[in-house]
Amino acid sequence: MKRHVYLAMKGLEEAREIFSGVWNGKRTPSEKIQVEDALGRVTSEPVFAGVSAPTYHSAAMDGIAVKAEETYGASEKSPELLKIGDSAFWINTGQALPGGCNAVIMIEKVHQTDDNTIEIRSPAYPWQHIRKVGEDIVATQLLFPQNHVVRSYDMGAMISSGIFTIMVRKRPGVAIIPTGSELVSHRDPDAFSLLKKNRIIESNSITLSGMVRESHGVPVVYDIVPDMEKDIRAAILRAIDSDEDLVIINAGSSAGSKDHTADIIGELGEVLVHGVAMMPGKPTVLGVIKAKPIIGIPGYAVSAVLSFEQFARPLLLSLQGLNPQKGRFITVKPSRDIPSKLGTEEFIRVNIGRAGEGFIATPLSRAAGSITTLTRAEGIIRIPAMSEGITQDEEIKAELLVDDEELKNTMVVIGSHDICIDILGDEIRRRGNNMRVSSGNVGSLGGLMAIRKGICHVAGTHLLDTETGEYNTSYIRRYLKGMKVSLFHLALRDQGLIVRKDNPKGIRGIEDLTREDVVFINRQAGSGTRILLDYRLSLSGIKPEAIRGYDNEEFTHMSVAVDVLSGAADCGMAIYAAAKALDMGFIPMDREEYDLVIPAAFLDDPKIRIMLDTIRSREFRDRVSALGGYDPSGSGELKMEIF
Amino acid sequence: MKRHVYLAMKGLEEAREIFSGVWNGKRTPSEKIQVEDALGRVTSEPVFAGVSAPTYHSAAMDGIAVKAEETYGASEKSPELLKIGDSAFWINTGQALPGGCNAVIMIEKVHQTDDNTIEIRSPAYPWQHIRKVGEDIVATQLLFPQNHVVRSYDMGAMISSGIFTIMVRKRPGVAIIPTGSELVSHRDPDAFSLLKKNRIIESNSITLSGMVRESHGVPVVYDIVPDMEKDIRAAILRAIDSDEDLVIINAGSSAGSKDHTADIIGELGEVLVHGVAMMPGKPTVLGVIKAKPIIGIPGYAVSAVLSFEQFARPLLLSLQGLNPQKGRFITVKPSRDIPSKLGTEEFIRVNIGRAGEGFIATPLSRAAGSITTLTRAEGIIRIPAMSEGITQDEEIKAELLVDDEELKNTMVVIGSHDICIDILGDEIRRRGNNMRVSSGNVGSLGGLMAIRKGICHVAGTHLLDTETGEYNTSYIRRYLKGMKVSLFHLALRDQGLIVRKDNPKGIRGIEDLTREDVVFINRQAGSGTRILLDYRLSLSGIKPEAIRGYDNEEFTHMSVAVDVLSGAADCGMAIYAAAKALDMGFIPMDREEYDLVIPAAFLDDPKIRIMLDTIRSREFRDRVSALGGYDPSGSGELKMEIF
Repeated sequence: MKRHVYLAMKGLEEAREIFSGVWNGKRTPSEKIQVEDALGRVTSEPVFAGVSAPTYHSAAMDGIAVKAEETYGASEKSPELLKIGDSAFWINTGQALPGGCNAVIMIEKVHQTDDNTIEIRSPAYPWQHIRKVGEDIVATQLLFPQNHVVRSYDMGAMISSGIFTIMVRKRPGVAIIPTGSELVSHRDPDAFSLLKKNRIIESNSITLSGMVRESHGVPVVYDIVPDMEKDIRAAILRAIDSDEDLVIINAGSSAGSKDHTADIIGELGEVLVHGVAMMPGKPTVLGVIKAKPIIGIPGYAVSAVLSFEQFARPLLLSLQGLNPQKGRFITVKPSRDIPSKLGTEEFIRVNIGRAGEGFIATPLSRAAGSITTLTRAEGIIRIPAMSEGITQDEEIKAELLVDDEELKNTMVVIGSHDICIDILGDEIRRRGNNMRVSSGNVGSLGGLMAIRKGICHVAGTHLLDTETGEYNTSYIRRYLKGMKVSLFHLALRDQGLIVRKDNPKGIRGIEDLTREDVVFINRQAGSGTRILLDYRLSLSGIKPEAIRGYDNEEFTHMSVAVDVLSGAADCGMAIYAAAKALDMGFIPMDREEYDLVIPAAFLDDPKIRIMLDTIRSREFRDRVSALGGYDPSGSGELKMEIF
Repeated sequence: MKRHVYLAMKGLEEAREIFSGVWNGKRTPSEKIQVEDALGRVTSEPVFAGVSAPTYHSAAMDGIAVKAEETYGASEKSPELLKIGDSAFWINTGQALPGGCNAVIMIEKVHQTDDNTIEIRSPAYPWQHIRKVGEDIVATQLLFPQNHVVRSYDMGAMISSGIFTIMVRKRPGVAIIPTGSELVSHRDPDAFSLLKKNRIIESNSITLSGMVRESHGVPVVYDIVPDMEKDIRAAILRAIDSDEDLVIINAGSSAGSKDHTADIIGELGEVLVHGVAMMPGKPTVLGVIKAKPIIGIPGYAVSAVLSFEQFARPLLLSLQGLNPQKGRFITVKPSRDIPSKLGTEEFIRVNIGRAGEGFIATPLSRAAGSITTLTRAEGIIRIPAMSEGITQDEEIKAELLVDDEELKNTMVVIGSHDICIDILGDEIRRRGNNMRVSSGNVGSLGGLMAIRKGICHVAGTHLLDTETGEYNTSYIRRYLKGMKVSLFHLALRDQGLIVRKDNPKGIRGIEDLTREDVVFINRQAGSGTRILLDYRLSLSGIKPEAIRGYDNEEFTHMSVAVDVLSGAADCGMAIYAAAKALDMGFIPMDREEYDLVIPAAFLDDPKIRIMLDTIRSREFRDRVSALGGYDPSGSGELKMEIF
C-alpha cells in the first residue's frame, strides 16, 4: 500500500514563520468603494478632506445674528434695541450667517419688545456662537492615514468633507476546496438518504467560510472533489489560477494512501511544511504554487479550526494590513492533571467554571473529530511542546471562546448527563435570564467527586442503594462526608431494555436475557445503570453468567443503543431517551430518581435560585414531560439537607 | 417667535431606565435562515441535532480493520497472520468499518508480508481507533440553547448533524429619517455646487447606519425631509407604520422654532424624555408611538453618535437577545485640569498617549459639531453629573476608541500643528510600520510645555528669536531649562500674506498693510506667526498702529485665511498651505524653521527611530515638497543636543 511520510515536520512557531515568509508584507490590491460601504474596511491610501466643514459661517445656537460692533453699548441699565431684519436676524443652529453679521446672541438672552424690535442687555463679542468655515475640517487636511480601519463616524467625517469614495484594500478571496469521496453536500437533495450509505455531510467548508468572514475575507467554496489525484490536481490548478488570494484544500493532507495534497503541491509548486507539531492539527501542509499560498487543512473538524487559526487567519489579516486579533485570556486551574505529549503543542478544549474562588478548567475529550469539544468549550488551554502536561494545582492561561460576561453567568453542572439538563439550560434562557449552563458528563459518582473538589455548582446523580432501594442519599452521606449539601429532585426517568425497532426477537423483560438467541450489551461496572441492572437481576434470581454478552461493556446509554441498532447485540439497558433518539424499541423496567446535589454555599447564588425557580415551573415540567420517558412532577422538591 | 422648553429633562441613567421600559424583554420575531448564513445570528429556539455524528462506525486512523477477537493471540514471538480481504481490510480515516469488524490497527503497526497477507505482533482490543456512531453528536441532543450567538464552528456542528436551517431573531430594522432644509444628500449630483449655496452634506445618516450595522441591525435611510412640520409628521408616520423596529429622527429634537420632533411625537404618541443631562447629546427626545420606540437624535455629529450609543444601541442588542457590548477601558491622567458643568454628564474626547509611565489624556475640543474630535480621539472620558471636573493628578477611566495595540504603538506629537506631521504619520504606515501618530494642536510654546510635563514624545515648534533671528534654540534653553532634549529639523516652510484669489487689492508686501483700503487680520499674541510678523514690521520700521485691523486676532492659520476669503479682512499672515487649501492668493515673505523637540529619554524608542528614519527618507521629502510651500531638504538634521 502506498504510504507517505511527513516531510519536514516542524514546530508550530517555526511553521508559522516559514509560511509567513511567503506573504509577509504583501497586501491585497486597492479598490475604490463608496464611503457608505466602508465600515470595517482598511484604507489603502491616505484620505484628505475634499471641502471644509463647515463650508460657511453658521450659527452654533438658536438666536439672533448681529454685528457685534452694534451691540457694544448694551447693558442692564441701558439695553440696546435692534430692528429685526435690519440689525438683527432670527437664526437657527446650523443656518448660514446673514451677510455682515459676525455674532449670534442666544435665544435665552433675547427679549422681543414688539414684532419688529429686539432688546439686548449685554454686548456680543465678535464670532460668539458661530461655527466658522473649516472649524472642524479644513479642505486638504489629512483625515485618515493609510492602513486605517474605517469606523462609523469616520464615514460621517468623510461624507461631510465631500469625500464620497475611497481606496481600500480588497478583501482577500479564499478558495476552499473540500475533498473526500465519502462527503456529500448539505445542498444535495439526497443528503439524508446518502447518510445511510455511509456518507458524511461536508461541514468543514461552512466552518471555514465563517472563519474567513470573521477575518474579513471572502470565501469561495468549490464543489466537493472526490479522492482522485487528477481531480484534486485540477481543482487546485483552477484555484491557483483564480483571483483568490489563498487556496485552502481540506483533508487529504495527512500521510495516508489517499492523502494526495502534499504530493500535488510539491509537484505544482513547493511544500514548505508537511506536518506541524501541534495537536489537533498535525497533518497540515503549508505550501506555495505560482507565488500563491496554499494550505492543506486536516479533515477532522477541530483540527481544521485550529489549523486555520494558526496559519490562515494571520495571513488574511496581514493581506489587509490589519493587526492580528488578540485573544481574551483568563487564568484557570485544571480540575485534574492534564498529561500532554512531549514535543507537540496541545490545544485542550476545556469547560471553565467559577464555582468558588478562581476559575476551574475541566478538559473535554481530545478527539480531533469531535466538533462539540469546541462548541461546548468555554476555552482552550495550550500546553507547550516542551511540557509533559500540567498538574492540578498549576495555574495556566486559557483563551476564552465565550465572553467574560457569559463566563460569570455560567452555572456548572457535572455528573451523569441527561437531556433534562439541556432543557433546563434552554428554559432558563427562554425565561429571559442571561445565564448559561455548562454541563460535563462524567457519570453520577464523578459528579459527587466534582462537588467534593468544589469545581461545580451542581451535580446530576442517579445512584441506587441496593440495600435500601433508595436513590442518591446514602452515596452522598458516604462520598460527601462532612460537607454541607442539599439534594433536590429533578425527575423520575424510565430505564429499560433497548431493542431493535419492532422488537424482532420478541424480548419482554429481563427474563428473556437468558435466552440462547439473545445477545446482551452491558454498561460499565459502577455506572448507575449497571447498579440498577444487577439489582434487578438479583431480585429476579438471574445469574449474570446465564446472560450472553454480560461481560461486554459500553460507557454511555447511546453506545448501548448503537450496538443494538447495528446488530452487535440484541438488547441492552438504557434510558428511554436513547431509544427514542435512534427510533428503536424500548421495554420500560424501572423509574429511577435523577437528582441534583448542590453545596449549601451556593444556595444563595442567584444562578442557583433561578435554576430552582425554573425546575419548579410548569413550563419546564411540560417540556420534560413532552420528551417521553420522564416524570418531572416532583422537580425542585428538597429531598435531603445536610448542614 | 415660537419657542419650546425641554420637557422633563432627565439624568442620563434615569432617561435610559425610562426608555428601556418601552422595550425591555421584547424580542424581534423569529425567522428561518440557512445555517450557512447564521454567523453572528442569535438563536430564537433551541437547536437539537437531526442525525448522529458520526452516522456510522468509522476508522479513526489509517490502517486495517479487523475483528478484535481474531487478533488476541498475536505477540512479538508469535505474530498473527491475517488475510487481506478476508480477516483484514485496508481502511482510511473516516471510512466505514466493514461488516463484522470492530477494531482498527494503525498502519504503523502493520507489516505486509505479501500481496495477500498482513502480519501483526500485538492484539487489538474491541473498538480501538474507531469513531463510533454518535460519538460526537447524538441525534435529538441539544446542540445550542436559544439566545445563543452562532460562531463559525457552531455552523459546522449543525450542518454535520443534519440541521440545515435554524430559527433566529430577525435583525432589527431601524428607520433613519434625516431632517433639515439645509441638508443635501451626497448622492445628489449637484451636491458640490449646492455647498456653495450654504447647504450642508447630510452625513449623520451614514454614521448612524454604520452604528446600526455594528449593533447587528439593518438601517433603512429615508430621504431628507425639509424642516416642515407636515413633512416630518408624514415621514414619522410612514416609519411608525413600517416593519422597522425603531425609528430615529435626526435633528429637530432641540427646543428651537424649527425643532418639531418633540411636538410631533407628543401629538402622535408619547414623549417620555425631552432633554438629557448629558453633553454632547442634550437635545435627545425619547418617545413611543403605537408601541414603537422612537428617538429624536440631535443634529450635531458628536451628539448624534453619543445619543445613539446611550439609547439606540442597548435597544437594538436587547431586541436580539444580545448582551450589551462592554467597552475597553484604561486608566489615564489628564494632561491638565478638565472642568465640567455640574448636573450634566460630560463625554470628553481625548487624545491618549504613553510618553513615560502611565497614560496621559489630553482633551480635544468639546464642540459637539466637530466630528473630528471623535475621529482623532483615542478615547472618551466620562465626567459624572455630580462632578465639577477632574484635576490634573486624578486618575480616571477612559473608554478606548482604538485598540490597545494601536495605543502602545502611538507616537504623540504636540505643539504647532502642521500638515507635514500628517504626511509623516501616513508615510510611516506606508513604509509598513504598525505605528500611529496622534497629534495635538496647542501652538509652539504649548508643545514645549507638553515636553516639560512629559506628556508627549515630540513637540513641533517654530519660534523665532527676534534678537538673534534664530529659530527655537533659545526658547528651548529658556523653557526646557535643565532638561535633556534634542532638536531635529523637519522643514522650512513659507510664511506670507494671504489675499483673496487674483489679489484684487494688489497687495505686494507688508508695506501695503498701512494702506487706507487694506484691512488686516492678525494672529494671537505669542503665536509663532505673530512673533514673525512683529519682527518683520520692526525691521521695516512699520508701526502696528498704522495697520487697520492689527488688533483683530485669530487663533489659527485657517481662521485667518477664512476671514480673508469671506471679506471680513483683505489680508492676513499665514502659511502657504492655508492659502492653498482655500485656493487663495499668497505673497511669500519668509521661510521659517519648523523643528521637532525630542526628550533624550525617547531617542532609543523604536517609534522615534522609525520616525527619524522616515523624515530622512527620499519618499517623505518628495511628498512634503509636492505640497508646495515647504523645503524639506534638511529634514532629520540634528540642530541641537542638550545632555
